[in-house]
Amino acid sequence: MSKSKKKLKVIPLGGLQEIGKNITAFEYGDDILVVDCGLSFPEDEMLGIDLVIPDVTYLIKNKEKVRGIVLTHGHEDHIGALPYVLRELNVPIYGTKLTLGLIKCKLEEHGLLDSVQMETVHQGQTVELGAFKVEFIRSTHSIADAVALAIFTPIGTVIHTGDFKIDYTPIEGQPMDLARLAEIGKKGVLLLMCDSTNVENEGYTLSERTVGETFDEIFMNCKSRILVATFASNVHRVQQIFNAAVKFGRKVTVLGRSMINVVNVAMELGYLNVPEGVLIDLDSMDKVPRDKLVIITTGSQGEPMSALTRITFNEHKKVEIVPDDLVIISASPIPGNEKLISKVINELFKKGAKVIYEALADVHVSGHACQEEIKLIHNLVKPKFFMPVHGEHRHLRQHAELALKMGLPREKIFIMEIGKVLELTNDSAKINGSVTSGKVLVDGLGVGDVGNVVLRDRKHLSQDGLIVVVITIEGDTGNVVAGPDIISRGFVYVRESEDLMEQLKEIAKQAIFKSSSKHQGDWSIRKSAIREALKDCIYERTKRKPMILPIIMEI
Amino acid sequence: MSKSKKKLKVIPLGGLQEIGKNITAFEYGDDILVVDCGLSFPEDEMLGIDLVIPDVTYLIKNKEKVRGIVLTHGHEDHIGALPYVLRELNVPIYGTKLTLGLIKCKLEEHGLLDSVQMETVHQGQTVELGAFKVEFIRSTHSIADAVALAIFTPIGTVIHTGDFKIDYTPIEGQPMDLARLAEIGKKGVLLLMCDSTNVENEGYTLSERTVGETFDEIFMNCKSRILVATFASNVHRVQQIFNAAVKFGRKVTVLGRSMINVVNVAMELGYLNVPEGVLIDLDSMDKVPRDKLVIITTGSQGEPMSALTRITFNEHKKVEIVPDDLVIISASPIPGNEKLISKVINELFKKGAKVIYEALADVHVSGHACQEEIKLIHNLVKPKFFMPVHGEHRHLRQHAELALKMGLPREKIFIMEIGKVLELTNDSAKINGSVTSGKVLVDGLGVGDVGNVVLRDRKHLSQDGLIVVVITIEGDTGNVVAGPDIISRGFVYVRESEDLMEQLKEIAKQAIFKSSSKHQGDWSIRKSAIREALKDCIYERTKRKPMILPIIMEI
Repeated sequence: MSKSKKKLKVIPLGGLQEIGKNITAFEYGDDILVVDCGLSFPEDEMLGIDLVIPDVTYLIKNKEKVRGIVLTHGHEDHIGALPYVLRELNVPIYGTKLTLGLIKCKLEEHGLLDSVQMETVHQGQTVELGAFKVEFIRSTHSIADAVALAIFTPIGTVIHTGDFKIDYTPIEGQPMDLARLAEIGKKGVLLLMCDSTNVENEGYTLSERTVGETFDEIFMNCKSRILVATFASNVHRVQQIFNAAVKFGRKVTVLGRSMINVVNVAMELGYLNVPEGVLIDLDSMDKVPRDKLVIITTGSQGEPMSALTRITFNEHKKVEIVPDDLVIISASPIPGNEKLISKVINELFKKGAKVIYEALADVHVSGHACQEEIKLIHNLVKPKFFMPVHGEHRHLRQHAELALKMGLPREKIFIMEIGKVLELTNDSAKINGSVTSGKVLVDGLGVGDVGNVVLRDRKHLSQDGLIVVVITIEGDTGNVVAGPDIISRGFVYVRESEDLMEQLKEIAKQAIFKSSSKHQGDWSIRKSAIREALKDCIYERTKRKPMILPIIMEI
Repeated sequence: MSKSKKKLKVIPLGGLQEIGKNITAFEYGDDILVVDCGLSFPEDEMLGIDLVIPDVTYLIKNKEKVRGIVLTHGHEDHIGALPYVLRELNVPIYGTKLTLGLIKCKLEEHGLLDSVQMETVHQGQTVELGAFKVEFIRSTHSIADAVALAIFTPIGTVIHTGDFKIDYTPIEGQPMDLARLAEIGKKGVLLLMCDSTNVENEGYTLSERTVGETFDEIFMNCKSRILVATFASNVHRVQQIFNAAVKFGRKVTVLGRSMINVVNVAMELGYLNVPEGVLIDLDSMDKVPRDKLVIITTGSQGEPMSALTRITFNEHKKVEIVPDDLVIISASPIPGNEKLISKVINELFKKGAKVIYEALADVHVSGHACQEEIKLIHNLVKPKFFMPVHGEHRHLRQHAELALKMGLPREKIFIMEIGKVLELTNDSAKINGSVTSGKVLVDGLGVGDVGNVVLRDRKHLSQDGLIVVVITIEGDTGNVVAGPDIISRGFVYVRESEDLMEQLKEIAKQAIFKSSSKHQGDWSIRKSAIREALKDCIYERTKRKPMILPIIMEI
């Protein structure tokens, strides 16, 4: 087969039709390149689950082809699955300095630091990975050192934006390298893969710098201690808090494990510039007057275990809220977290703090591009084919509509699902086949050992609780020698329901007696007879459906 | 005691520091007047709970004083607890025609229709209830026939706004009776209680009529079937959908139990005007061309059992989505429902439907007043004292700040908690004591039989599931004659964890053996020894903490 007849396969393994766990495989001949390797947070129905990672069975099966994992930036939904995936797929990873700095913390926690090959790249650099040449293009996002990717393949170029916004006045470094995108666009781009997160929003996302202006105003007028909660990874936001603190003569201390981690990494690598003496540790806090102090903390989403939540509800060892504290929530609630953050805000107000949040002042901007920015990218890149990425179906669909309006014909736009394979030649593209893909649930140390049956049981238990019926039977005769005993958890106050429990015992007895004559020895039939008899009585008396667990012991 | 020395007690029993279950008691001498009697929906941590009603112990204790319950409008958070409260407190209820019409449906379902005295009032009317004269003042809200209340007492007048917005161009009837509020305000108002729901929003809430204009535009350009999901109780919204249908020659059918209920009641009582032949039943739907059909349905919050959700996921008997269907979600997500509704929107897009929702077009307006409207009320009523109502703490606090800015001194503003008593004379007000109050959880037929212990167990079970350890012991000797058996639910795939289960059995055996020598006969100590031994092993091997339920049977 001649080289030009080979096809490029683009295989999203996560990040489409969902927010999070972004990962895409690019396959050409005997080479596979992976872009990003993120996690997502559990859906409401995934009870007890800690986090969700992509199913990378396809990559593991093709281990020997995988040349490396290239990372666009250091957010959890782009790097968070690495400690799990690298255990089974030990390939080199490529990222900018800050991105790798954040990954190092993670790998260290998982005891993987020494076994992984990490290659630092800088914005503008190109690396060769098998048949692929990958150029890291300077980008702007709500984390420093983000890149878009130009992936040069023998049959054409793919532009992958990663997460981005177009910030013409970023806090640090230069704006996104639009000129380079234009140059590559002019030479011809086969496929554009572009961030869809904010495609429902008209206009432009405001510059990160506008938040700094709000901070300045707030700090200028504040005569008390200031606490600011934000995303730990938003180094530019953190820089702006430091800037305002310096400007108004305040010391800064940092709270929350991930915030401390990120601040340390970012300072060490030069992404956070803090004048000598401004950053103090928690124990020196008491020596600084309250009105000369800023506390930067995690917890902007109201996460129950975060520093801000613990401080708010008097569960923090060293910090507590006092009246007149000013608390700034410098973040938007991620969908699903509205009630959590609202609880924290209410409690802060109750404790007498002043609270400033997005509804009241411009203390946050998004890290993702709105419609006009997205249009600019389409206009510069002018791709032959287009695949919207990073978004739920609604976002991908809106993004497809936007591309249509920009002049791309419908048949050149591909709304993909994870696991589907987009097969490209230099002038064609089609969906051709699929590979294994999906969600792997992480619960404690278990990776993938909790699935639908376990989740269904957890759901059932959570709704109406549990009733256990135990009896002991003499094996030879089938006679009941102890029980039935009935134990319930999560069902009703037992003390107030004694007569119900007595009735259930009686029903269980009868069911055992009836079934024993007919089905002696066949335990599963006898168990299900007990279950059915109790179920009906319980539903009639309570309209509830607890899990019923009959246990028969034999002596 | 002379009449003028008697005090007015205002006792909120719900609706403060929370959204929902609005209810307030007014007490003067031997008379108690109750305003509203609503429910709220369970918080996330209230697993398995159906709904939450206020604790009305105080009213039941003072049964003989309660003269009646006055209702401001027919939303669930103002009337939903009536079927539960009226069972224990059979007093007359007063409300406008539509409000009582909606209550009748409820009472009928609960078999209470014949035992409750209902008095229909009209806007502008005054009724006398013991020492109280209550005037029902025309108001506007996202349900027809809403009223604000002027409560005249011997020591002064209380204005209670109920839920409201100021809509100068309402769909039906007249705008809010601002002139009457001004008149009462001029004569002097002792206390204002005002809706705080939207106090964080600047400006004005748009008129309901603007949504009708959007409907007209959408209907005009649509060549396919239209489905509109909205709140059943928003009769004006439903009217506007009918209006647009009539204008563009479409038939209308109605889906979802509560939507059918409300449309029937509203048509019967004259709140919904539908020309002959426009409303058709579901079975006649097939006779109408798709592009001449509108379906009005429940499910605007993505509720899993609602008509729209069932249609969307192919679970509805008679309706399914076909490509090109146009679906309008005419509602905002209530905080906490964002992900549910997003799931429905994504699935609708996947099925090929076009979906229009708040992010894309003006298909919804709020029913609550924003800052400028609230200021107008304060300006007209000019109260001596002020109590912000209907809102979480953050809203009450913002509303207090607004009142301060309007010139009311801080000591005349009372941010209350439920159960606290505000005691007023004609020129003073103070918080004085408290009464029993709180949440009563309704789960199936059980009212109040699920409390913290049960919820804690459900939460525990939902996170890591359950492990049951059963043994049978010979009573005389303390010897184990059967077991230990280990059964798990919601913990791990048992098949993949056989060696863990074997290990647990072994540990349980040892724990029983060890404890039996020391504590023979003391079951609770032996059970806890088993529990501790298993807990440590399970945590070490899985980092999970399932509920462990040791059961010892004695023969």
